Amino acid sequence: MSFTVLQQKINEKKNPTVVGLDPKLEFIPKYIINDVTKEFGETREAAGEALFRFNKEIIDCCYDLVPAIKPQSAYYEMYGLEGLKALWRTVEYGKLKGLYVILDAKRNDIGATAEAYSAAYLGGTELFGTHDTMLDADSLTVNPYLGIDGIKPFMDMCRKFDKTIFVLVKTSNKSSGDFQDIIIKEHDMPLYEHVANMVMSWGEDCKSEKGGKFNPVGAVIGATYPEQLKNLRKKMKNTFLLIPGFGAQGGTAEDIKHAFDKDGEGAIINSSRAIMCAYMKHNDEENFGKYARGEVIAMRDAIMA
Amino acid sequence: MSFTVLQQKINEKKNPTVVGLDPKLEFIPKYIINDVTKEFGETREAAGEALFRFNKEIIDCCYDLVPAIKPQSAYYEMYGLEGLKALWRTVEYGKLKGLYVILDAKRNDIGATAEAYSAAYLGGTELFGTHDTMLDADSLTVNPYLGIDGIKPFMDMCRKFDKTIFVLVKTSNKSSGDFQDIIIKEHDMPLYEHVANMVMSWGEDCKSEKGGKFNPVGAVIGATYPEQLKNLRKKMKNTFLLIPGFGAQGGTAEDIKHAFDKDGEGAIINSSRAIMCAYMKHNDEENFGKYARGEVIAMRDAIMA
Repeated sequence: MSFTVLQQKINEKKNPTVVGLDPKLEFIPKYIINDVTKEFGETREAAGEALFRFNKEIIDCCYDLVPAIKPQSAYYEMYGLEGLKALWRTVEYGKLKGLYVILDAKRNDIGATAEAYSAAYLGGTELFGTHDTMLDADSLTVNPYLGIDGIKPFMDMCRKFDKTIFVLVKTSNKSSGDFQDIIIKEHDMPLYEHVANMVMSWGEDCKSEKGGKFNPVGAVIGATYPEQLKNLRKKMKNTFLLIPGFGAQGGTAEDIKHAFDKDGEGAIINSSRAIMCAYMKHNDEENFGKYARGEVIAMRDAIMA
Repeated sequence: MSFTVLQQKINEKKNPTVVGLDPKLEFIPKYIINDVTKEFGETREAAGEALFRFNKEIIDCCYDLVPAIKPQSAYYEMYGLEGLKALWRTVEYGKLKGLYVILDAKRNDIGATAEAYSAAYLGGTELFGTHDTMLDADSLTVNPYLGIDGIKPFMDMCRKFDKTIFVLVKTSNKSSGDFQDIIIKEHDMPLYEHVANMVMSWGEDCKSEKGGKFNPVGAVIGATYPEQLKNLRKKMKNTFLLIPGFGAQGGTAEDIKHAFDKDGEGAIINSSRAIMCAYMKHNDEENFGKYARGEVIAMRDAIMA
């Protein structure tokens, strides 16, 4: 689904936040761990089942309030094949509940291999002469270090299957400046700004004929860099922004107020741990879904204020 | 296993080549496809089984000649969970045959998430109080765009579990220059050279006490850029190099002759399609393993000449 559809979901729910689903076992309430180990033993299968049950409860408690979820692939890959099965189930369940699903996997490679990744997560694969949809996220995060060859296959899938990508521009972590802030001689601007320019031009190249304000090539810009966010928002008029770094990483509602365009559109703000682990502050693990919901409401109200 | 062990394997076999295992279904001989679909139907399970049978035959025909294999994760991810199962089986089988396994997955993220990736592929995960080794490759390729935060968790795993990583420096694809060749104002050098400098300093920081010429932080430099390869080799005296782009992508034995240090060590050259698909030139799919072996020998002899 295009960013136009994502924006519609945001408008319907009056909430530009995405719930990050990064479910490490240590974040999961003990009663779920007890249930799954009773049923499956202390196995990888139990771990995968715990991840999914945790995610399902959070989705059930928040889907009427948020437009989207963003599972982070690493937190499933670390539990092996059973973890990945939980990722698949989470994506399917999220879509069933009408949520826009952003798979945060930061994939990148040379052209032929980027094509394989885009088949895995956006387009599907030819299987014995039949097209088989694989994980089928709505959107995928992508790393730009390999240049256009590594982005084009994802753009092709966006065009063909009405999907979207978010290219890393300025990431939320402390050391994002190590390379992203380096000043480029020719353009006398930081690398991330040059990447932003390329993202805009790539986006123009794969605009759909149907129109809509936003092209399918979005950008990741951390909430932890509010000045850069403000400047990039001004420039990137047709680019949808994914803003990580809110909450546990330190980004505040004040920091992200410039993420939106003049119509108050074009950005989605992620929070993961602050939502998933909200119950910890209340010492009431049985109601973790309720506290996640409370945190989502608090975050929405803070952002919309 | 450290790069010292990889170099030992290279020396024993007098062969610095790594077999890239990127098994798309279209590369797999029809008789295998017929066998697996007869057994499992036209299903994802059949696809996964085909990938593994193909890889197993190539490993069986080449393991006495090569030090290492490099499965490319994308080509398994594109076949879903059954594809990933084939990846796990391939890694296990390669290790069983005494091969050094480099997982080419180009993972990258902020610190906490990079930690999850490093658990997934290098270190293993805590599961209900027990340490559970997951995919357990010897080495993983890693993208540097997020700076040191995103590299450090992998370095920690290298130290702790005697593993290695290869950081992307100058990739083999045509558009690698889009960002990697950009001249940095402060240092008046291309970005990839600055990344190379950081790779060297990261490597120094996680040198093991046991010594050995090569630290665990290696670099990826494409065979398709022989001048850059020559210059980087001169500088990066303690860095092990992974050289993709040989064969199907256009790199030749002449192009990679400067990849090795003065002792003829410190580099491993990858070829994927030229080995996997060698049988296609002979129109003899039943003997694809034999032709893969022939190609490995031809490649070894060309490189060693």
